[in-house]
Amino acid sequence: MIQPVHGGNLAWAAAIANCPPDAIIDFSASISPLGPPKSAICAIVANLDNLRHYPDPDYRELRTAIGKLHQLPPDWILPGNGSAELLTWAGWDLATLAATALVTPAFGDYRRSLEAFDANIKPFSIFDGKQGLDRSSPYLQCDRDFLLYEQSSLHSYSPLQRGLLLNNPHNPTGKLFLLESIAPYLEEFALVVVDEAFMDFLPPEQQQSLIPLVEKYPNLVILRSLTKFYSLPGLRLGYAVAHPDRLKIWQTRRDPWSVSTLAAAAAIAIIQDIAFQQQTWAWLPSAREQLFTSLTQLPGLQPWASAANFLLVHSESSVKQLQQRLLQQHRIMIRNCLSFPELGDFYFRVAVRSHSENEHLACAIAQSLANNP
Amino acid sequence: MIQPVHGGNLAWAAAIANCPPDAIIDFSASISPLGPPKSAICAIVANLDNLRHYPDPDYRELRTAIGKLHQLPPDWILPGNGSAELLTWAGWDLATLAATALVTPAFGDYRRSLEAFDANIKPFSIFDGKQGLDRSSPYLQCDRDFLLYEQSSLHSYSPLQRGLLLNNPHNPTGKLFLLESIAPYLEEFALVVVDEAFMDFLPPEQQQSLIPLVEKYPNLVILRSLTKFYSLPGLRLGYAVAHPDRLKIWQTRRDPWSVSTLAAAAAIAIIQDIAFQQQTWAWLPSAREQLFTSLTQLPGLQPWASAANFLLVHSESSVKQLQQRLLQQHRIMIRNCLSFPELGDFYFRVAVRSHSENEHLACAIAQSLANNP
Repeated sequence: MIQPVHGGNLAWAAAIANCPPDAIIDFSASISPLGPPKSAICAIVANLDNLRHYPDPDYRELRTAIGKLHQLPPDWILPGNGSAELLTWAGWDLATLAATALVTPAFGDYRRSLEAFDANIKPFSIFDGKQGLDRSSPYLQCDRDFLLYEQSSLHSYSPLQRGLLLNNPHNPTGKLFLLESIAPYLEEFALVVVDEAFMDFLPPEQQQSLIPLVEKYPNLVILRSLTKFYSLPGLRLGYAVAHPDRLKIWQTRRDPWSVSTLAAAAAIAIIQDIAFQQQTWAWLPSAREQLFTSLTQLPGLQPWASAANFLLVHSESSVKQLQQRLLQQHRIMIRNCLSFPELGDFYFRVAVRSHSENEHLACAIAQSLANNP
Repeated sequence: MIQPVHGGNLAWAAAIANCPPDAIIDFSASISPLGPPKSAICAIVANLDNLRHYPDPDYRELRTAIGKLHQLPPDWILPGNGSAELLTWAGWDLATLAATALVTPAFGDYRRSLEAFDANIKPFSIFDGKQGLDRSSPYLQCDRDFLLYEQSSLHSYSPLQRGLLLNNPHNPTGKLFLLESIAPYLEEFALVVVDEAFMDFLPPEQQQSLIPLVEKYPNLVILRSLTKFYSLPGLRLGYAVAHPDRLKIWQTRRDPWSVSTLAAAAAIAIIQDIAFQQQTWAWLPSAREQLFTSLTQLPGLQPWASAANFLLVHSESSVKQLQQRLLQQHRIMIRNCLSFPELGDFYFRVAVRSHSENEHLACAIAQSLANNP
């Protein structure tokens, strides 16, 4: 079977582990282990009877609810069939520019959306920043020089002709760009697309979202996901925040009903589920700390400090073999990093899960490393 | 409020009728009144627990099930977030050709997908066919001359540079092209896209699907919907049948998980729901006949013979006013045809519904016409 290029491919894992997909403990997809919240399931069940109708193509109620969350009018919001669908239209806009700076290692779907529209991609590795990379800090430095110093491949393009695509927190490292380190790029790029798929895992006062700047910058697009924090990746649900003129154009490109009735109803319910949000913010810091500490104690492994709900881990030995053994012997799936050319076979990524599952993972890895030194 | 360009816009209708959306009887969307089948709802409920996982990006089980239905291997099938999503990628392919013949009046979303990619659209009205249009027959003639006679706007383009987009049965007329009247075009066009969204409403022995030709013609794409026959437009679910090489390219353009876990599970269940299918084929002919007869008896109205689950009706008086009155006085929504430039304000389209609802519609129209001659 072909190695998957995304986490969460249970069909592939089950074939390797020779067990039903349900029996796999999935650390490979960066999904909260706490959900889905009851509020989501109740909203879905309550709306089964509405499946016989088309969704409202304006998604007025959903846009109003999300807009309220961000103190924006509804037309600044465009819901999508997962943020991956919206990435398609962002890739189209970026491809109209002469060059797009892509912060790497990058989520594989960024290249899909850029290459689909023949974008001119200029990769910028976080390892190459002038200030270097501090693996022990959950923050990523991103000063002006990182992308725009004189030797940069972007230097020859006018600011009117260059785009920027990055995610914050950064995947797969889990590191966070501070708002003030990205904001200056809004003056230097014709379009800045920030994928904030994991931002909601940070408590509100620690978030570094660019959404508060969107009314000032028509060249800013923020993508958000509702399926990672609320454990609903099977439902497909995300949204873009950007100037209404841009979102209107995106709507002329895509089909009129891209979000299902059930996803729209669940979204309205979960964004108001304060109890679930607080439970998540209470769980994550200590669970992440526990997983970090357990992995640090294992020989040859070095996790990176992370602000998100997953950890990137450096391994002295081949990850491909470790991944295989964990699946076959423990039915545990971790995410190898072969699809990130900058990382290769000596890194893996794991989601933070419940305390007991995190402990289970650490024990399984310890056992695997001990038996195969 | 802006007039909707598609049927089924309950939010708009409810605002005009000043009632909750639930209270509207919707004849404007061409959806079966018999569903959703229990098999769909059971499959959705049984899979709520799987929402915490990503869908299989290969949709192997779903593609295998649909392939079996059409006696094709799984890689000839691509499921989509409604056939409208797949239309986007078909529009892209058509736009790479020098010109696309569009059979009109046409479902409005065809223009959306073609214009998004700057296709060169050449409309061919069914009213202009050399053989004329027989309103009393459920069949549409479509001989070679219709699109390719010497005076045609397509005549100057090489067959290697022209595309064709049509639907069968045709929407909004409900008329059926015979297989042998479309098949010759496969030799005359570089790409033929046939939207068969309503084909499943015909019993198998009467269907005129081009799917049996797909293995012979790599320039053929068939789009199918699963949401009209099974009353699930809120779920978003369709599929394309075409050469695997073409479908692989479409997959590199779109996001990896475009069909939700719930839609995939429902699809597998419903295509095997023989009882529901037979119930539908037993209901439609007599219900359509009843609605046709009732409308024919009303002054100034002339329904067209249809092979599908809806009727196009010519009206001697303004439809816009009739639509408004039906909503305000009877909470009944019909589809006006203002978005079809070839039809304008003197046609409307109604779905065939249950016998009692069809009767209710005819009475409401009769009353409205009597009070506003």
